[in-house]
Amino acid sequence: MSNAKVAIMMGSKSDLELMQPAAKVLRELGIECTVRVMSAHRTPEKVKKFVEGGPADGYRVFICGAGAAAHLAGAVAAHTTLPVIGVPLARTPLGGQDALLATVQMPSGMPVATVAIDGAANAGLLAAQILSVSDSDLAAKIEAKREERRKKVEAADAEVSASA
Amino acid sequence: MSNAKVAIMMGSKSDLELMQPAAKVLRELGIECTVRVMSAHRTPEKVKKFVEGGPADGYRVFICGAGAAAHLAGAVAAHTTLPVIGVPLARTPLGGQDALLATVQMPSGMPVATVAIDGAANAGLLAAQILSVSDSDLAAKIEAKREERRKKVEAADAEVSASA
Amino acid sequence: MSNAKVAIMMGSKSDLELMQPAAKVLRELGIECTVRVMSAHRTPEKVKKFVEGGPADGYRVFICGAGAAAHLAGAVAAHTTLPVIGVPLARTPLGGQDALLATVQMPSGMPVATVAIDGAANAGLLAAQILSVSDSDLAAKIEAKREERRKKVEAADAEVSASA
Amino acid sequence: MSNAKVAIMMGSKSDLELMQPAAKVLRELGIECTVRVMSAHRTPEKVKKFVEGGPADGYRVFICGAGAAAHLAGAVAAHTTLPVIGVPLARTPLGGQDALLATVQMPSGMPVATVAIDGAANAGLLAAQILSVSDSDLAAKIEAKREERRKKVEAADAEVSASA
Amino acid sequence: MSNAKVAIMMGSKSDLELMQPAAKVLRELGIECTVRVMSAHRTPEKVKKFVEGGPADGYRVFICGAGAAAHLAGAVAAHTTLPVIGVPLARTPLGGQDALLATVQMPSGMPVATVAIDGAANAGLLAAQILSVSDSDLAAKIEAKREERRKKVEAADAEVSASA
Amino acid sequence: MSNAKVAIMMGSKSDLELMQPAAKVLRELGIECTVRVMSAHRTPEKVKKFVEGGPADGYRVFICGAGAAAHLAGAVAAHTTLPVIGVPLARTPLGGQDALLATVQMPSGMPVATVAIDGAANAGLLAAQILSVSDSDLAAKIEAKREERRKKVEAADAEVSASA
Amino acid sequence: MSNAKVAIMMGSKSDLELMQPAAKVLRELGIECTVRVMSAHRTPEKVKKFVEGGPADGYRVFICGAGAAAHLAGAVAAHTTLPVIGVPLARTPLGGQDALLATVQMPSGMPVATVAIDGAANAGLLAAQILSVSDSDLAAKIEAKREERRKKVEAADAEVSASA
Amino acid sequence: MSNAKVAIMMGSKSDLELMQPAAKVLRELGIECTVRVMSAHRTPEKVKKFVEGGPADGYRVFICGAGAAAHLAGAVAAHTTLPVIGVPLARTPLGGQDALLATVQMPSGMPVATVAIDGAANAGLLAAQILSVSDSDLAAKIEAKREERRKKVEAADAEVSASA
Repeated sequence: MSNAKVAIMMGSKSDLELMQPAAKVLRELGIECTVRVMSAHRTPEKVKKFVEGGPADGYRVFICGAGAAAHLAGAVAAHTTLPVIGVPLARTPLGGQDALLATVQMPSGMPVATVAIDGAANAGLLAAQILSVSDSDLAAKIEAKREERRKKVEAADAEVSASA
Repeated sequence: MSNAKVAIMMGSKSDLELMQPAAKVLRELGIECTVRVMSAHRTPEKVKKFVEGGPADGYRVFICGAGAAAHLAGAVAAHTTLPVIGVPLARTPLGGQDALLATVQMPSGMPVATVAIDGAANAGLLAAQILSVSDSDLAAKIEAKREERRKKVEAADAEVSASA
Repeated sequence: MSNAKVAIMMGSKSDLELMQPAAKVLRELGIECTVRVMSAHRTPEKVKKFVEGGPADGYRVFICGAGAAAHLAGAVAAHTTLPVIGVPLARTPLGGQDALLATVQMPSGMPVATVAIDGAANAGLLAAQILSVSDSDLAAKIEAKREERRKKVEAADAEVSASA
Repeated sequence: MSNAKVAIMMGSKSDLELMQPAAKVLRELGIECTVRVMSAHRTPEKVKKFVEGGPADGYRVFICGAGAAAHLAGAVAAHTTLPVIGVPLARTPLGGQDALLATVQMPSGMPVATVAIDGAANAGLLAAQILSVSDSDLAAKIEAKREERRKKVEAADAEVSASA
Repeated sequence: MSNAKVAIMMGSKSDLELMQPAAKVLRELGIECTVRVMSAHRTPEKVKKFVEGGPADGYRVFICGAGAAAHLAGAVAAHTTLPVIGVPLARTPLGGQDALLATVQMPSGMPVATVAIDGAANAGLLAAQILSVSDSDLAAKIEAKREERRKKVEAADAEVSASA
Repeated sequence: MSNAKVAIMMGSKSDLELMQPAAKVLRELGIECTVRVMSAHRTPEKVKKFVEGGPADGYRVFICGAGAAAHLAGAVAAHTTLPVIGVPLARTPLGGQDALLATVQMPSGMPVATVAIDGAANAGLLAAQILSVSDSDLAAKIEAKREERRKKVEAADAEVSASA
Repeated sequence: MSNAKVAIMMGSKSDLELMQPAAKVLRELGIECTVRVMSAHRTPEKVKKFVEGGPADGYRVFICGAGAAAHLAGAVAAHTTLPVIGVPLARTPLGGQDALLATVQMPSGMPVATVAIDGAANAGLLAAQILSVSDSDLAAKIEAKREERRKKVEAADAEVSASA
Repeated sequence: MSNAKVAIMMGSKSDLELMQPAAKVLRELGIECTVRVMSAHRTPEKVKKFVEGGPADGYRVFICGAGAAAHLAGAVAAHTTLPVIGVPLARTPLGGQDALLATVQMPSGMPVATVAIDGAANAGLLAAQILSVSDSDLAAKIEAKREERRKKVEAADAEVSASA
């Protein structure tokens, strides 16, 4: 599994900034990832071809970010049985509620592992956790990262409880 | 246009009862329609093939009913530039709010003409209205149907205002 | 159908900026359109007269933008059996949820083809798709426009996957 | 003002049961009322004619019950400057949220006095309160009715606090 | 009725700007009004005393603006059988949804005539409409004001349809 | 504190069944409580008198259950600085969302300790926890009750994990 | 009870500004409080240890602020039978609706006394009210503070009614 | 990976029926799973011990079902870096919206892979997909299962299109 890759997909280049944290987390953990702009509606053929070829190309998890009537994660799920992670993006006046429901309420047989609205960083981490199921080195890296966060919270606590 | 057909699609046979009113309205207006069970996620290839072949098969409008993270109308829209009508179905504890947002909040370039939650009858009528743009006989039939409804409301008014 | 026109209506001049994209799309596709300010509540007589005279004036589709308790599309639908497209506008602190529900939840017999909140561009495109049902030249133009978008997404993909 | 009348309107006979409490309250207070079935969309001409003739016919307040994209109260308000009371009805899977927003979020210059979802009894009472502004006998009756309710609550309190 | 007054109440001075449009409308129509800061929770005694003394002081309608768990209109309604108009204010991150529900969903026997979120201008107009039921001069002024708006919409239409 | 009492209030006898669990929890913990029917709107004077006399009568905490535009807890809070617990009740088609917002979104200076929709049992327990702050015997009883629940969960786990 | 302390907890230092008003209110009332940064998810052990040691350390009430899927208050409640106050914070595009539901909808046996979204000041006051149940000096201070607010509202009323 | 196990956890025995479909899917795919009743709030120690011991006991994925302020999945995530799947359950009058937001809106560093409301079957399938990343036999079984569903949809289509 050491060369497993993660695909980070989004329907529009304008989603790039919101989705970059997924790539950042994966790279910090030493996982190779590819960032792609493909649309469930505008380039469905490309989505299909890319996703169906995913296993052969080394992809093991797909991360899909989309706003509004967010269909990308579902469209990807339709072409693979590998895990698909959906990131609902807050791109309309409804604050991401549309994207959340369109991503998470998938029908039976087609799960999308949904994370929080605008939660690309957690999508990256979840992909890593999935890969770590069979990669103990990666599991150790994830645990180390969590330990770091733990220390940051403790440092913040020390600082705040001292000054407040 | 006199032999234009309408395709009524749904992702699951369990949606049939909710979607039948679309067929009923169309048939009453003398429009041929076909009812099909195809899923954006389970049979995406079939959806693509059917929709792309739609113009040649005589289809001029697609009606798509779906609940939950309702993607079918969007998936159909991705394969045709013919008008696509979406019927959000109330199939989850959220009362159709999920299906409504997943159907109506389509991205730029991919409109889905969305009707009310569980509004299959109106979807049928809207399809007829679309066909009537270039079919004055059909327009007359729709107007006659509307006149009927007008009379029913007036009869109800007469009855209620007399008795109440 | 080559001289079919589309009416773009809104209840207030302050909606003009949000509704202009509908006109832009239509004009790019060579469809004549008129932009009108009429209010379901303030000038109901004018709405009625304009809409009832629509067919004679060459209008084939009505696009109606409105925010809050958005009634314009419904009021137009009451006076015509031509297709009516509703654009819910986000004009209140509720983010367009009020306009969406007031536009889409129409009663049986009075469909409004609803597009996304602030989705005027898609309303223009949907009107064109409706006209294209009996106008193969227009259908070809719409397909060409879609192809353009497809290429833009592919160009964005090339750029992002190269650099990211 | 002693012969002022109230019009109770609804778009469909199926709303009659939900709207009857308005008539009941008014009649208990000795106010004449008429119950009518008219639809903002199906019989807009009749609505206009009835509402415009309202003052001459002795109507002083209009009560309008409607569900879904509830436009009736707004349509009535467009034809009169008399007070219009809206009753949002819970007739769709959205539990009346659609009717509430479509009734209450009226644009500037066109108020609809909105009561609770399915709140026809309160609509009747509000109409009476409006008429009581210039009718001290009616005001006294309303106060007496309120006193009755006060006593019922006190009786319930006595019963519950004794037994519980 | 010619010297009937309207009380405009709010729970906090910070609501003044949002509520001023009610006073403006009333004054334009020649109706005397008083603007008061009283809180259902902080000065309940004062609310009670003011409202109970309202009829003697010449008040005929109460307008109450409040945000969040907006109780003011209900608290006023508890002390009078005169019409009470509620204006839900958008003062929290929920965009006025909290204030709307807390204002409109009143229990049986205690109606609050609710207008749109931040709809103080309409509250003023509704108060005037209520007073106009027994004041034909006022009714004429309201009709004139509406005619003005009608003309503004028509002027906007002329301008937009000429230029667009 | 051993004879501190809790008042359980509701606006209507029809709320009694939903509120009884509060009394049950309190009595199991040996805390005296009184169940009263008083309405913020119908009997505001009685609410005021009862609440203001609360401290002298031995009440230390008020529990208020209300549905719809639930004002009771806020009205009680306006007359006391003792802790007030609000129980939003699901009594309308909005599923308690109205009662929740009307109870919890209180303005600064007037907190209501809100529990879950229809959460009367937890309201009783919270009242007990508040009293236990200065009553170590009561604290021990609450801890014992929690231990019981813990054991029930463990027994359920044993049963389920054995059979499943 | 005169040396009872209140713990103010939050999951992240970035919540400090929103939570400071709780400390301010408590200190104004002469109640000692500690501000701590601990996370239900990142430092669960520390939360447990701190909360379980709370009684011995003199803590009598816990205030927990959290946004998004706000679990902190619930996690604290799991380790103590002392009163726990939850402050839902508006930290996501959903305007605090997520935090509100995740805080208030606690299961039976685990109440969290929830205040308004971003309502830290009220959380501080509620904690003081809870302590005042057995501390009449504190009760007097809270009453004095309320009297101050009452006067501020009255001063605002005097100012506004004079000028408006 | 062939002996990897999945833990299915829920906070109450009353959730068992809603969660059984997860076990059913896993067993059909030959994956061993254990069903446990543990509560984030009532038995937090047991949750911690079970989850921390999970890797040694052979668990590779945790599935957590919870309603209302659904904290179980988050509490499990706090004690492991293995993938955690959350199933929001519709157990309150809010139709699962509370559980959905409390499950999916997790803070950075603590992802919960959320599936649809009451979507236990999809949770089981997602767990299988996660295990299949490094288990090609399992991947083949999942693909076969999907093929079955595909055929069912096609059979339904044949039946419906023949008869309708």
